[in-house]
Amino acid sequence: MRTDPRYWEIQQFYADHMHLLDSGDTAGWAATFTEDGTFVPPPPRPAVSGRGNLAEAAALAAKERAEKGETHRHWHGMVSVRPGEDADSVRVTCYALVFVTPAGGAPRLHQSCVCEDLLVRDGESWLVRHRRVSRDG
Amino acid sequence: MRTDPRYWEIQQFYADHMHLLDSGDTAGWAATFTEDGTFVPPPPRPAVSGRGNLAEAAALAAKERAEKGETHRHWHGMVSVRPGEDADSVRVTCYALVFVTPAGGAPRLHQSCVCEDLLVRDGESWLVRHRRVSRDG
Amino acid sequence: MRTDPRYWEIQQFYADHMHLLDSGDTAGWAATFTEDGTFVPPPPRPAVSGRGNLAEAAALAAKERAEKGETHRHWHGMVSVRPGEDADSVRVTCYALVFVTPAGGAPRLHQSCVCEDLLVRDGESWLVRHRRVSRDG
Repeated sequence: MRTDPRYWEIQQFYADHMHLLDSGDTAGWAATFTEDGTFVPPPPRPAVSGRGNLAEAAALAAKERAEKGETHRHWHGMVSVRPGEDADSVRVTCYALVFVTPAGGAPRLHQSCVCEDLLVRDGESWLVRHRRVSRDG
Repeated sequence: MRTDPRYWEIQQFYADHMHLLDSGDTAGWAATFTEDGTFVPPPPRPAVSGRGNLAEAAALAAKERAEKGETHRHWHGMVSVRPGEDADSVRVTCYALVFVTPAGGAPRLHQSCVCEDLLVRDGESWLVRHRRVSRDG
Repeated sequence: MRTDPRYWEIQQFYADHMHLLDSGDTAGWAATFTEDGTFVPPPPRPAVSGRGNLAEAAALAAKERAEKGETHRHWHGMVSVRPGEDADSVRVTCYALVFVTPAGGAPRLHQSCVCEDLLVRDGESWLVRHRRVSRDG
């Protein structure tokens, strides 16, 4: 049960990362992955690689949410940070919840997931090199 | 995507701040705002300024919860901390959830919000100078 | 409203602690208590003391979840850390949520609780010496 002094940086990173996604800044969100970053969502959705493809997939999802009038909020929590292969990478396992609020309606819990990330340092912050999300149930 | 070394202090502050509110210590909660602190809740509720008015508004809400037999739990998460105008202030954007449990009943998700705070240093801790809460949906 | 520099270690500890429990590694989870650690759950469930008994109780609960086909996720949040009796112990008060997802189904909020822990240092990490959980409602 090792711990990592960069813990708070990872929390700050996830906050900014999800604020970008949930606010619809999908290009900004894609830029928080490495240029060749890969996102492996729960099946049957296929893996997506590269900032261009990540931005495109996120923009499509954002458009669907907007058409439905829904607000999505991604919460990462119970964040466990492990050293990566070198000083500039970390392995993270955390829980992820998605809360959805329809226009004029009450919020609901939409998904409970586990997220496994390989993050790499990018100056003062971090980028996602690889993400695998497993959906409960 | 700048980060701030005072990140953990802010998390500790929010924990104490919400424990005070949810436990019904409304005067203690109001004392975690600056003397002239302002809370701008989601419309149509009006803005409230000053510790006395904040304590009064919180006490009224606590009384209503007690009469209904409800327990409220405020969760802040996905906390993004940015430097403020000077070394003793920070700007925070975070998500906020409110969970409500009726006496003898099951908990439910009541609200999903975004909270934007201006916090100022107060010795070893922080105070809220200005808060704006936007409710999803 | 004192704050504690070991704050991030506690968050990392809780993440690992709950990942062990929720993944069914109940012996691993019990090992994150002290040898004589005590868990006082909400009534009417009785207090459990000692790693062997903790592992046994957790294994029984894990077996029940598995038979139902449910996934449980324990979230600690709004974590307030206070100094303990000496430099190697801390008192924590936090909120705890339990989300349950049935096989093939949608997740639901199962419980909202308050958790009060006495944690003691164990080398680079921490152990639970005493835990009391109060369930809302």
